[in-house]
Amino acid sequence: MSRDLYLGVDAGGTAIKYEVAGPGSLACGGGQIPTDPRDAGATLRALAADAAPLLGGAGLPRLAGAGLACAGIVNPVTGWLGRSPNLPGWENSDLGAAMHAAFGDVPVALANDVNGALYGEYRHGAGRGHRDVVMIALGTGVGGAVIVAGSLLLGQHFGAGEIGHMVLDDDGPPCACGSRGCLEAWAGSTGLLRAARAAVAAGTATPALTRLVAARGADLETRDLAGLAGEGDASASTLFAAAGRRLGQAVANLVNVLDPDCVIIGGGVARAGDLILGPCRERALPLVLARGAKDVPIIPAELGPRAAAVGAASLAREKAQEVR
Amino acid sequence: MSRDLYLGVDAGGTAIKYEVAGPGSLACGGGQIPTDPRDAGATLRALAADAAPLLGGAGLPRLAGAGLACAGIVNPVTGWLGRSPNLPGWENSDLGAAMHAAFGDVPVALANDVNGALYGEYRHGAGRGHRDVVMIALGTGVGGAVIVAGSLLLGQHFGAGEIGHMVLDDDGPPCACGSRGCLEAWAGSTGLLRAARAAVAAGTATPALTRLVAARGADLETRDLAGLAGEGDASASTLFAAAGRRLGQAVANLVNVLDPDCVIIGGGVARAGDLILGPCRERALPLVLARGAKDVPIIPAELGPRAAAVGAASLAREKAQEVR
Repeated sequence: MSRDLYLGVDAGGTAIKYEVAGPGSLACGGGQIPTDPRDAGATLRALAADAAPLLGGAGLPRLAGAGLACAGIVNPVTGWLGRSPNLPGWENSDLGAAMHAAFGDVPVALANDVNGALYGEYRHGAGRGHRDVVMIALGTGVGGAVIVAGSLLLGQHFGAGEIGHMVLDDDGPPCACGSRGCLEAWAGSTGLLRAARAAVAAGTATPALTRLVAARGADLETRDLAGLAGEGDASASTLFAAAGRRLGQAVANLVNVLDPDCVIIGGGVARAGDLILGPCRERALPLVLARGAKDVPIIPAELGPRAAAVGAASLAREKAQEVR
Repeated sequence: MSRDLYLGVDAGGTAIKYEVAGPGSLACGGGQIPTDPRDAGATLRALAADAAPLLGGAGLPRLAGAGLACAGIVNPVTGWLGRSPNLPGWENSDLGAAMHAAFGDVPVALANDVNGALYGEYRHGAGRGHRDVVMIALGTGVGGAVIVAGSLLLGQHFGAGEIGHMVLDDDGPPCACGSRGCLEAWAGSTGLLRAARAAVAAGTATPALTRLVAARGADLETRDLAGLAGEGDASASTLFAAAGRRLGQAVANLVNVLDPDCVIIGGGVARAGDLILGPCRERALPLVLARGAKDVPIIPAELGPRAAAVGAASLAREKAQEVR
C-alpha cells in the first residue's frame, strides 16, 4: 500500500472537520468529530481513529502528510500555537508534536484558519489560476489572508492578514477589539445584527424587519436578514449595502497596496451574495488607482466551510513534496 | 580596467540625479543634471556624459550595471514605462531600450521612484537588516512601497504600494485623486498647507501662524510650518499632530495586514521628525493586533533625497549578480 493520501484538518472551537485528498484532487472524503477544546492530543487521536477507514485502516498506512488549520497565532515553522481564544486548552503548545503523536512520522503542515481557507480556495476554489490573492472572511468576526506570488503572507510575528481590523472611520461603531470603525464592526455578523437591531430600535426599519427581529430575538442570524433582503425588503437590503460599501472601501485600500489579481470574499455573511458583493464592487472599483487593477475580480469563495480543511490538505501535500 | 561600478539614476520631472556605487558600498560619487521631460534618450545620453569621469571615462569602461527609478507605472521585466505624469515625453516608451542606448550592453534595472527609495533604505539606510519593510513617502503627494521577504512587492499591474490613497474616512478632505479622506489628503504637503490656510481662514490659528501664512503666501512650505511648530507654536504643532494621527491609522492598517518588521517614513514632510512621528506612533501602536507587532519600529528614512538613486544602483547590482 503506497502513501498517497493527504489529511487536512480544520480545528474549530466546537467541531474538528477533516478532508482527505489525493495527490492532485480536491478531496475524496472527510468527516467531523467534536473538538475537546481542553485537549489537543485527545482530539487529534480521536480524529485519527475516525479517519482511519479512509487512510488504509489502523496505522494510517496510506497517509502521506497531514495539515492542520486553526484560529490563533500559528507558527508554521516551529509548529507552535500561540494565542487561540477558541481553543483555550490548545494554546501555547507544540501542535506540531501533537500532530506527529496522532498521525505518525509524516510531513506536517500548520496554518491559521483563514490562511488555510485561502490556500484551499487558491488551490481548488475561487483562486485557481491566480498568483496574488487576497481573501476576506466575513464571519462573526472578519478575518483575512494574503497570497503573494503563490505563497501565504505570514508576517514577522505570524500576525499578517488582520484585514478585519483595518480602521475605516475613526468615528465608526465600536469593534470587539476595542477600537472603533474596524471593517469587522460593519461587515462581521455581530456588526450586521447590531445594525439591524439599532434600525428597529430607532423606528426606521420596515415592518417586516421589525417583525423578524422581534420573532427571532437572540437567535437572529445574518441568514435571516439575507432571506428578508432577498425578498426585496428595503431595510434588510440597506443593511447589507452599508456593510458592502465598507467592505468595498477595505478592498480598495488592499488593492491599492497589494495590486492582487483576485479578491475572494468568504464566510457566512458572504452567502448573502450580490446583496453585499454588488455594493462592495460599486464602492471599491472607483477607488482603485492602477488602471489595470480597476477590473480586479471581487468574487465569492467556492468551498464554503470546507475551505480550511481542503487548504490544510493542500499545504500538507506541498510540505511532503518539499521534503521529498 | 574591470567593470566594478553601478550607476543609479533617479529621474524627476525637473532634475535627474545619479549615484555611483561600488560592489558593496553605499555610493562613491554622484551628480545631477536637468531633466528634459520630453526626451528620455537625450536626458540619459547627457547623464552618461556627465557621469563618465566617475565611470572610467568615455565608453564607461567601469560600468557594471545601471538602474533607473522614476515616478509612474514601471514594468521592471519588460522595461516599459506606462503612465508617468511628471515625464510626459517619457511615458509609454521602452525605457529599458533607452537605458541600453545610453549606457551600453550592461544589465539594466528599472523601478518606480518610491520602490527605488525603499530599496535604497532597505540596502543602505533605515531598513538595513530587516526583511519585511513598508515605506511611506510624505511628499506633495504620498507614495508607498512594500518589501516582502526581501523582494519589492510589484503587484499584478505594477500598481502596488499606493498607500497614499488608502481611504481613512469617507468624510475626509478631498484628495487630488478624486476621492475623499485618502491618507494623502491629510499627510501630503498639499493637505498640510491647505489645513494651515483653513485654520487661518477660520480664525482658529495662533497669531504666529496667521502671520506666517500671510507673509509666505503662495510660497508657504511644510518646512515653514515645521519651523514654527519646532518653536512650540500650538497651531502649527496641531497640524502635524493631526497628519501624524492619520498616518498612524494608515500604518496600523498596514501592520495589521502585512506584519512587517519595520515601517520607514520618508519624504519632505517627514523631516518634521517627531512632530509627526510621535502622534503617528501614539495612534498606530494601540491599533496593532498581533502582540509581537506592537513594538514594530516606525522610523524616519535615512537617505533623504538620495534614496531612489541609491536604490536604483542597488537594484542594478543585484540584476548584474543575477545575470552572472
